[in-house]
Amino acid sequence: MSAAISPLAPKHVPEMPAIAGVKLATAEAGIRYANRTDVLLALFGEGTTVAGVFTRSKCPSAPVEWCRAQLKRGKARALVVNSGNANAFTGKSGRAATKLTAEFAAKAASCKPAEVFLASTGVIGEPLDAGKFGPVMDGLAARARAGDFFDAARAIMTTDTFPKVATRRTTIGKTAVAINGIAKGAGMIAPDMATMLSFIFTDANIAAPVLQAMLNEAVIDTFNAVTVDGDTSTSDTLMVFATGKAGNARIARGRDPRLRSFKQALQRVLADLSEQIARDGEGARKLVEITVEGAVSKKSARRIALSIANSPLVKTAIAGEDANWGRVVMAVGKAGEPADRDKLSIWFGGIRVAHKGARDPAYDEAAVSAAMKKPEIGLKVALGMGKARDRVLTCDLTKEYVAINGDYRS
Amino acid sequence: MSAAISPLAPKHVPEMPAIAGVKLATAEAGIRYANRTDVLLALFGEGTTVAGVFTRSKCPSAPVEWCRAQLKRGKARALVVNSGNANAFTGKSGRAATKLTAEFAAKAASCKPAEVFLASTGVIGEPLDAGKFGPVMDGLAARARAGDFFDAARAIMTTDTFPKVATRRTTIGKTAVAINGIAKGAGMIAPDMATMLSFIFTDANIAAPVLQAMLNEAVIDTFNAVTVDGDTSTSDTLMVFATGKAGNARIARGRDPRLRSFKQALQRVLADLSEQIARDGEGARKLVEITVEGAVSKKSARRIALSIANSPLVKTAIAGEDANWGRVVMAVGKAGEPADRDKLSIWFGGIRVAHKGARDPAYDEAAVSAAMKKPEIGLKVALGMGKARDRVLTCDLTKEYVAINGDYRS
Repeated sequence: MSAAISPLAPKHVPEMPAIAGVKLATAEAGIRYANRTDVLLALFGEGTTVAGVFTRSKCPSAPVEWCRAQLKRGKARALVVNSGNANAFTGKSGRAATKLTAEFAAKAASCKPAEVFLASTGVIGEPLDAGKFGPVMDGLAARARAGDFFDAARAIMTTDTFPKVATRRTTIGKTAVAINGIAKGAGMIAPDMATMLSFIFTDANIAAPVLQAMLNEAVIDTFNAVTVDGDTSTSDTLMVFATGKAGNARIARGRDPRLRSFKQALQRVLADLSEQIARDGEGARKLVEITVEGAVSKKSARRIALSIANSPLVKTAIAGEDANWGRVVMAVGKAGEPADRDKLSIWFGGIRVAHKGARDPAYDEAAVSAAMKKPEIGLKVALGMGKARDRVLTCDLTKEYVAINGDYRS
Repeated sequence: MSAAISPLAPKHVPEMPAIAGVKLATAEAGIRYANRTDVLLALFGEGTTVAGVFTRSKCPSAPVEWCRAQLKRGKARALVVNSGNANAFTGKSGRAATKLTAEFAAKAASCKPAEVFLASTGVIGEPLDAGKFGPVMDGLAARARAGDFFDAARAIMTTDTFPKVATRRTTIGKTAVAINGIAKGAGMIAPDMATMLSFIFTDANIAAPVLQAMLNEAVIDTFNAVTVDGDTSTSDTLMVFATGKAGNARIARGRDPRLRSFKQALQRVLADLSEQIARDGEGARKLVEITVEGAVSKKSARRIALSIANSPLVKTAIAGEDANWGRVVMAVGKAGEPADRDKLSIWFGGIRVAHKGARDPAYDEAAVSAAMKKPEIGLKVALGMGKARDRVLTCDLTKEYVAINGDYRS
């Protein structure tokens, strides 16, 4: 864990309302860290539906495999998340650890193990001693209350420098509903699904397949459009739990017009959390929004934007406050997508530095230098090939990133 | 330019023989650097054939476009290489600069501009003042002599910390021939063709199409199997010039058995130079050889090896001398190629640290720590999926990489 809070951390932390049907508790199980909470238990009322998206890694963690298997039923009564150990690449002992953890939680929550969802984050490849959850589980269940989401977000941190929370209120029909979300993740972040741990809680009454379809749609331009280092975790997990306690008539069709506002609110919670992930990128000093327009398709724009966002040379230039558009050209060129050098224009901080394949004659070096000193930098590329656009968020690559990852065994 | 020579630089520099039909000269044209040579002229005897491979970037530099256009004729009389400015993304002025440079050289070398080949390396996006070549070109041509390849290698350096040369002697039939090579490149190195500048000179008599076919084959496991940062340059250029002065009967068929030994020697020169590129990776302190075996195909093995080699988390772990096989699992998983977590085995420095999806029970932490302290580290992954294997070279990711690229505008 880094000592200093990221300079890009949000200035305001929202008040997080209680969500009817959700109770939370955290504890110090001593998995890896001393003197800090490292396990979160969330209990859900009966009838809670669940949806999830997970890492596309071919070598997923044991908890990811567990969740995928249980998700088919669409029902959840408990969630256990630990930090300090990812229970990934731990072979048979990893599977045994997930089973044991689910059994502990099921006993404490008076539900079936199959209704318990699990996530682990931290070191890969070290066996997880799930026995440590036994002594704390009953206490967690007893203490769980309509809760402190900030505390919950804190318990799941690893190299994060601040807890990540977001909330929105909306309506379904005439019923007021709330959506709360928490997330963690600072390194090993790349858009191949959720790219970190995030849990969304709502009191809306929505059937599991509808929840799943909404989630699949909402991740595309939020969590999947954020990259810190292009490295996809084996544990990426994003789940939504809907308790139904708000009392709206259950929504069973994805196209139900009453969902329109809810979909927007869900999208905003995910956008808020995923931006916080980029803001807490390991060693990050700059939040970088990369926009690619004039592409032949959104997919092509996304690939070019990610090629720029993941380029070590672009990221180190931004760390050095250098509007190095030559490296942007390089990253556009290597993406392999339709592009024409002589049609390219590039902006840093809203200032056009290159136009139609050459340096912009009106390029004002002083103005660009001033823009590059800001903590938030927009980088725009116009390809001039078509009409599609896309946008991704990333951060710069600093010596601190190397220091954090040269020392911390994740 | 970095001050200190890479600790991974070769301990021995070979004697480079003269190549009949090749004359070299270098000069200080003041393109960007002061008090160092920054332009190389090579003159070739009549009848010299040429082959080349170039960046796959969609936004190639003006010299790359020039060379591609001239290469069809397969004839070369001169090569001009400058460092300090890549003449990339320079619009119409870039094309004008290549034309002017070729005209200067053609006049000095008494040949056609179409027989002049060009390469530029350095800053992208700044106009190249080709006028600076005019005053030095006649002097270069007058001074050119059967030459100092070490000097030539020095003139084309940018952030390189040492000049890169390699040589081999072989025979074609009963005729002795020699192959010399020079290269530059330390950052913006990724295997999407040649990934830097390299020029090979031989006195062998080989038809241009045969030379081209051999080169295409030889780059696959040499220059295309080296990555420093995954960033593909807009200027990557690898050319071979064959003067024919050794006097062997011209080889006109690629399958000619007399070429067997020459092919091997060419492959070795390219392997030698490309390894030196990895050894001089920006900020590199470790040379890392990544072997992937048990893959379903060589292509799949290559993709997985590159996913490992380009992972910032793997590279920073190696910089931190941490045998972090969890991150190797992550990189295998994100490659998207067939892999099964529970069949994976991983070795660092020849010591098996993970076996069949979990930590190797016999894993000796002290022995692995000792292996990680060495300047050259082997990282092997056995997938257990098939019989194919592949190997790539890379280096670690250090704070110095960030420092070099946060300050230097390439």
